[in-house]
Amino acid sequence: MALVNEHFLKLPNNYLFADIAKKVNAFKVMQPKAEIISLGIGDVTQPLAPVVIEAMHKAVDEMSVQASFRGYGPEQGYDFLRQAILDNDFLPRGIHLDIDEIFINDGAKSDTGNIQELIRWDNSIGVTDPIYPVYIDSNVMIGRAGVVEDGKWSNVLYMPCTAENNFTPQIPEHRVDVVYLCYPNNPTGTVISKQELRKWVNYALKNDSIIFYDAAYQAFITDPSVPHSIYEIRGARKCAIEFHSFSKTAGFTGVRCGYTVVPKELTAATIGGERIELNRLWNRRQCTKFNGTSYISQRAAEAIYTPDGKKQIQQTIDYYMQNAKLMLSTFRKLGFEVYGGENAPYIWLKTTNGNSWKFFEELLYGANVVCTPGVGFGPSGEGYVRFTAFGSHEKTQEALQRIEKWSV
Amino acid sequence: MALVNEHFLKLPNNYLFADIAKKVNAFKVMQPKAEIISLGIGDVTQPLAPVVIEAMHKAVDEMSVQASFRGYGPEQGYDFLRQAILDNDFLPRGIHLDIDEIFINDGAKSDTGNIQELIRWDNSIGVTDPIYPVYIDSNVMIGRAGVVEDGKWSNVLYMPCTAENNFTPQIPEHRVDVVYLCYPNNPTGTVISKQELRKWVNYALKNDSIIFYDAAYQAFITDPSVPHSIYEIRGARKCAIEFHSFSKTAGFTGVRCGYTVVPKELTAATIGGERIELNRLWNRRQCTKFNGTSYISQRAAEAIYTPDGKKQIQQTIDYYMQNAKLMLSTFRKLGFEVYGGENAPYIWLKTTNGNSWKFFEELLYGANVVCTPGVGFGPSGEGYVRFTAFGSHEKTQEALQRIEKWSV
Repeated sequence: MALVNEHFLKLPNNYLFADIAKKVNAFKVMQPKAEIISLGIGDVTQPLAPVVIEAMHKAVDEMSVQASFRGYGPEQGYDFLRQAILDNDFLPRGIHLDIDEIFINDGAKSDTGNIQELIRWDNSIGVTDPIYPVYIDSNVMIGRAGVVEDGKWSNVLYMPCTAENNFTPQIPEHRVDVVYLCYPNNPTGTVISKQELRKWVNYALKNDSIIFYDAAYQAFITDPSVPHSIYEIRGARKCAIEFHSFSKTAGFTGVRCGYTVVPKELTAATIGGERIELNRLWNRRQCTKFNGTSYISQRAAEAIYTPDGKKQIQQTIDYYMQNAKLMLSTFRKLGFEVYGGENAPYIWLKTTNGNSWKFFEELLYGANVVCTPGVGFGPSGEGYVRFTAFGSHEKTQEALQRIEKWSV
Repeated sequence: MALVNEHFLKLPNNYLFADIAKKVNAFKVMQPKAEIISLGIGDVTQPLAPVVIEAMHKAVDEMSVQASFRGYGPEQGYDFLRQAILDNDFLPRGIHLDIDEIFINDGAKSDTGNIQELIRWDNSIGVTDPIYPVYIDSNVMIGRAGVVEDGKWSNVLYMPCTAENNFTPQIPEHRVDVVYLCYPNNPTGTVISKQELRKWVNYALKNDSIIFYDAAYQAFITDPSVPHSIYEIRGARKCAIEFHSFSKTAGFTGVRCGYTVVPKELTAATIGGERIELNRLWNRRQCTKFNGTSYISQRAAEAIYTPDGKKQIQQTIDYYMQNAKLMLSTFRKLGFEVYGGENAPYIWLKTTNGNSWKFFEELLYGANVVCTPGVGFGPSGEGYVRFTAFGSHEKTQEALQRIEKWSV
């Protein structure tokens, strides 16, 4: 008799963005004429850069002729893209990686979800709280997260990040096998300094822990002192896997391309004490369960590393960051406590009533603007909401005007 | 201390196609001027259909303008493609599926590898032997396959398919929780009749087993009595998940798109006896670990269901099947025992010496033609080799002429 993987059943039935959609729909039924502006889901709105469009047309044309047709590509991605990544995202920061340490994927979500397959099912995990739900949910599905007790998973260490500790998670006093870090952070929009990140690397090296470092929003960093990659820290290659995405960097949420760095120096132990290279294991995982990313998407990603490509994607990033700036100044003018938004496309707002969902509903009914309740990202998100800067200028400005009118 | 998932270490270090590449490279070093023709790896060679190229250009253009730009799509795929699949792949065969039962993916390999996440880690599995290695390897990685004993995995039931039993696997006498079937079969190129498939569905219903049915090659079926989908069999919705791919159907090995059918009627039990819908679980899995397939690839797939698209992809399928026909007749003329090739793009040849790798090397050195050693697909593949019909006519003809010269 086929039995179900019962770990799946431990997951809560409600899912953050589905719950939001439900509440928005309920509102629409009551006020069908209201024009809602969503600053909720972190999806981009601006079209792809001209160099990307051009590269994709060219790739499509190649596929129409036998001489240039491409079938299966390497599961790890094409070298033209892996090399462009090395040359542009790492070498200029003094990080020397090998091409075999870069794995192209169809977006960071897949790999941040799948990476836990490499470690033992009963390893403990730690997450900053609030956090992107995929980290925990993917561990729940295999049983690694344990069971829910008082709204928290029993085998997960939650490291609160709130205004009270200036969004700086405390390094655990005991050993945690695997730690998920995301900087610039989704959802809080806050960043980590090199000094703080160094503490984490040292912690991992000392405890033989692994850091899964999600750098999906690194392109939004404006402060030159903020690290773009954990490999800017000495020793990180021995303890960290890093995830990158073109989704927000270049508007690829519909194109699907990103990459993961698994350094060859990184090992994990067997019960018997043998050290195993995770690079080799991840390669095996990808070759078995993945067949490479669309050739057209890979050519699209390559194009953003050309001189024109860099300029064009920077323009769009600047466009979004202008939204963030306006949001920060408006919210502050209105007396709200707000965080993030300077090196990340997210604004984290501390609600006055201390209740994420209540604020969400008040804002929806009062200003017809959708935000994301912070508690949906974890217990320490209660009392906050997230706004994204990915809207158009027009919609963002209008949303802010409505909020101003509503809050006064 | 982070511990490695030691199940990965049980996998053999050698990987079929890597081993082949190694041997081919060794040959090239010795005979650098020899021109090798590969009929080994099952990758397509003909360019994409004009309708597909047109649809992709159009989709790329949409992404260049804000009004038509698409960000995140549904994790389950766009309804335009799901509906086209329902209307063309199922309705004409009298199969009524719900749109929510179709999950678009980035190729069948991902889903055939990931689907085992839904079932308990200690469920037993059965495979026809020889078989596509992903089915077993993905189960090895989570520990479900057990350990290797005499070249076989201890928790896997192997159902031999050889010339001796006319490539018809015997229905197991005891209960197996999950059975992987692939028809038309990779690697043997053989098919299953409705009558035989009905036995499997009845077996699964009786034993409360689940069938993972890989139909990736269904477009190559020419015999009208051969089933294209397991859902042509009554009761299959209660016990089967089906995998489809556009990789071979429409030359999408580099475009990356396929789909999986998870009927709502299909349930698996908890230890406590509760029945759980796998459709809901797979949806949760995909929403957590997958972010949808490239919009451009989905528009490409949609185009093959237009009247022109159907004609164009059929022309390419016919092109490959002409290769298969010529291969079958040539091999038979030369006195080889060959199977498959009539409803599938693979020819399964029984070697005269009974040794897959020995034949592989003799053919490589004697005719400079690459085939795939059958033993690489499982113990019952020993003594066979696989040829693919995916080459160009010119290369295929030349390879056959060389084989003729070499074998006489």
